[in-house]
Amino acid sequence: MAIPKMSVAELGEFLRVEFPQTFALGSVIIERADGGSCRLRERFSERMLRPGGTVSGPTLMALADCAMYVVLLSAIGPVGLAVTTNLNINFLRKGAAGQDIFAEARLLKLGKRLAGGEVTLLSGTSTDPIAHVTATYSIPNQ
Amino acid sequence: MAIPKMSVAELGEFLRVEFPQTFALGSVIIERADGGSCRLRERFSERMLRPGGTVSGPTLMALADCAMYVVLLSAIGPVGLAVTTNLNINFLRKGAAGQDIFAEARLLKLGKRLAGGEVTLLSGTSTDPIAHVTATYSIPNQ
Amino acid sequence: MAIPKMSVAELGEFLRVEFPQTFALGSVIIERADGGSCRLRERFSERMLRPGGTVSGPTLMALADCAMYVVLLSAIGPVGLAVTTNLNINFLRKGAAGQDIFAEARLLKLGKRLAGGEVTLLSGTSTDPIAHVTATYSIPNQ
Amino acid sequence: MAIPKMSVAELGEFLRVEFPQTFALGSVIIERADGGSCRLRERFSERMLRPGGTVSGPTLMALADCAMYVVLLSAIGPVGLAVTTNLNINFLRKGAAGQDIFAEARLLKLGKRLAGGEVTLLSGTSTDPIAHVTATYSIPNQ
Repeated sequence: MAIPKMSVAELGEFLRVEFPQTFALGSVIIERADGGSCRLRERFSERMLRPGGTVSGPTLMALADCAMYVVLLSAIGPVGLAVTTNLNINFLRKGAAGQDIFAEARLLKLGKRLAGGEVTLLSGTSTDPIAHVTATYSIPNQ
Repeated sequence: MAIPKMSVAELGEFLRVEFPQTFALGSVIIERADGGSCRLRERFSERMLRPGGTVSGPTLMALADCAMYVVLLSAIGPVGLAVTTNLNINFLRKGAAGQDIFAEARLLKLGKRLAGGEVTLLSGTSTDPIAHVTATYSIPNQ
Repeated sequence: MAIPKMSVAELGEFLRVEFPQTFALGSVIIERADGGSCRLRERFSERMLRPGGTVSGPTLMALADCAMYVVLLSAIGPVGLAVTTNLNINFLRKGAAGQDIFAEARLLKLGKRLAGGEVTLLSGTSTDPIAHVTATYSIPNQ
Repeated sequence: MAIPKMSVAELGEFLRVEFPQTFALGSVIIERADGGSCRLRERFSERMLRPGGTVSGPTLMALADCAMYVVLLSAIGPVGLAVTTNLNINFLRKGAAGQDIFAEARLLKLGKRLAGGEVTLLSGTSTDPIAHVTATYSIPNQ
């Protein structure tokens, strides 16, 4: 197991400053981050829904992107601005209205220049994923 | 060239009702939609930006998803709720602060059950894409 | 746990007939298939290598595609010709020359029309994946 | 238009040495490569087919990967070993038995560390693509 470079409290503080639109409102909470994986919770809001009452694709993509960034920061610390280079999402099931969404991310690779990971998105207490994401981050030279 | 099943005016009206969060505010405009391709413009807003002043990934993913939906509606009409099954995005360049974003989508395949397309995302007047997206939609039985 | 519709022996026999180029030579072996996941082994061969002595991308993509097909057959039985609609692969590390390759696939979703899964590719006895794949299959009407 | 760093003849010679399994047999031919795009032809062979008489997925993935490598070499010259980091393929239509396959690749981005591009795969003389690929290459430090 990797030793995290930032604690959950440090990650929360960093993200509230850097991503106020996402984190300042308290709708996204870091439940766990350990240098190799993390788990985020996004509180349910009507704004998440698309017609038919299901959770929208952009909501899930944004949360997955965020989870990948959190696990990466947890692994390498706040050392410069990593950027997503590729994100692939498969939508598997409908997320239920009224349920919080959870993102469980883990690093598959942490290289000097590139990091890759996967994110499983869950709705409420169901263990069947509603979406699955892989993403690659480019890490700038320090 | 395909004959569009919905005009730009009909698409705009449909989307303002179905996706009020995205379309009611007038920040996203359908410039063209012809049954095989479409072009959207999203007006610049500070909310698009991430730290460093570049356009955020979720902003681009949401606009691309929207453009794919518009070109699909333009091709098949408002006949039930198509859902995205896969979306893949490659982030290529930084979108400039202060510039509107454009999404140019075209259908690569329109089958009975699945439709696929690609979207090129552009910033301001530059012809170098800032991101490239492919997406697949599942079309419900009518 | 799902009940497999085909045993490992039945899968092997089916694939030797249907995919003689891949399976008749005995280079790919089904180690396990249980209706929800499977594990394949591909014996090392010089033909797998690209310059520099690493395992080639096409070798890994072909094995991953095959593993997804095996787990799907194991889940639904030999009921018509499912086809891949999307495959996304992230190459993570170099596969070592001289080592067998393993593909561990599991279904993420099994719907009536679409199935999705992920495949982890491993080299020899290392637990660090050399590549990660997600794929979607379209299931024909029966 | 970019000035190619290698001519078609130089590319062919380089690839026959570096990728003898693919290029030495003459089944894949570089028809054009200009530093920003390229076009390859793969002669039809029974080995391409899967059950049902359609062109197999691995055949298309291998040719697309190859086309991306050719356009990249054409742009940067034979300067070290670039490696694919991500490849995403959407299968759109069946490739017809008996027809040659064509891969038309173009660079979407050529950075110092990463290059991205797309490949359209065609069967015979049809203009409807049978598959569409995006790929990212990591370029080693020179």
